[in-house]
Amino acid sequence: MEYTAEVRIELKSGVLDAEGETVGKSLKLLGFPVKGVKSVKVYDIVIDAVSEEDAKKKAENAAKKLLANPVIQNYFIHVKKI
Amino acid sequence: MEYTAEVRIELKSGVLDAEGETVGKSLKLLGFPVKGVKSVKVYDIVIDAVSEEDAKKKAENAAKKLLANPVIQNYFIHVKKI
Repeated sequence: MEYTAEVRIELKSGVLDAEGETVGKSLKLLGFPVKGVKSVKVYDIVIDAVSEEDAKKKAENAAKKLLANPVIQNYFIHVKKI
Repeated sequence: MEYTAEVRIELKSGVLDAEGETVGKSLKLLGFPVKGVKSVKVYDIVIDAVSEEDAKKKAENAAKKLLANPVIQNYFIHVKKI
């Protein structure tokens, strides 16, 4: 069966989000009443798995092995059946 | 009042997603049963607005003016009250 796994990768709190800061400053300069911006990377993965738990486990392994840097990033996974 | 606007920026269909392709190939090489990967950029923005509609309008303007490239990208906005 096929599942989509949304892997959401955020910087850990305390790690400087240079992209978010820059976007926030630019939006303020353009006149938007912005209090803060956080930049997030998302990968939508279509994955073969026998169950939702299996798909989640595989996506977690993928995040650990390739997608996220555990020193500075947290990841959150959301699995849906297609 | 403060709202969070999640601005989700995706490549339009037909536009080459080089990052997604590369991640997909790498995951396959690592043995993951992946059918496809789409890379998505998300900005979580904290914004001052008088209502949810106002916050959505402001986030849409921000996406149009700065965050997304309308030639190759689509954006989707999700607003929540904090």
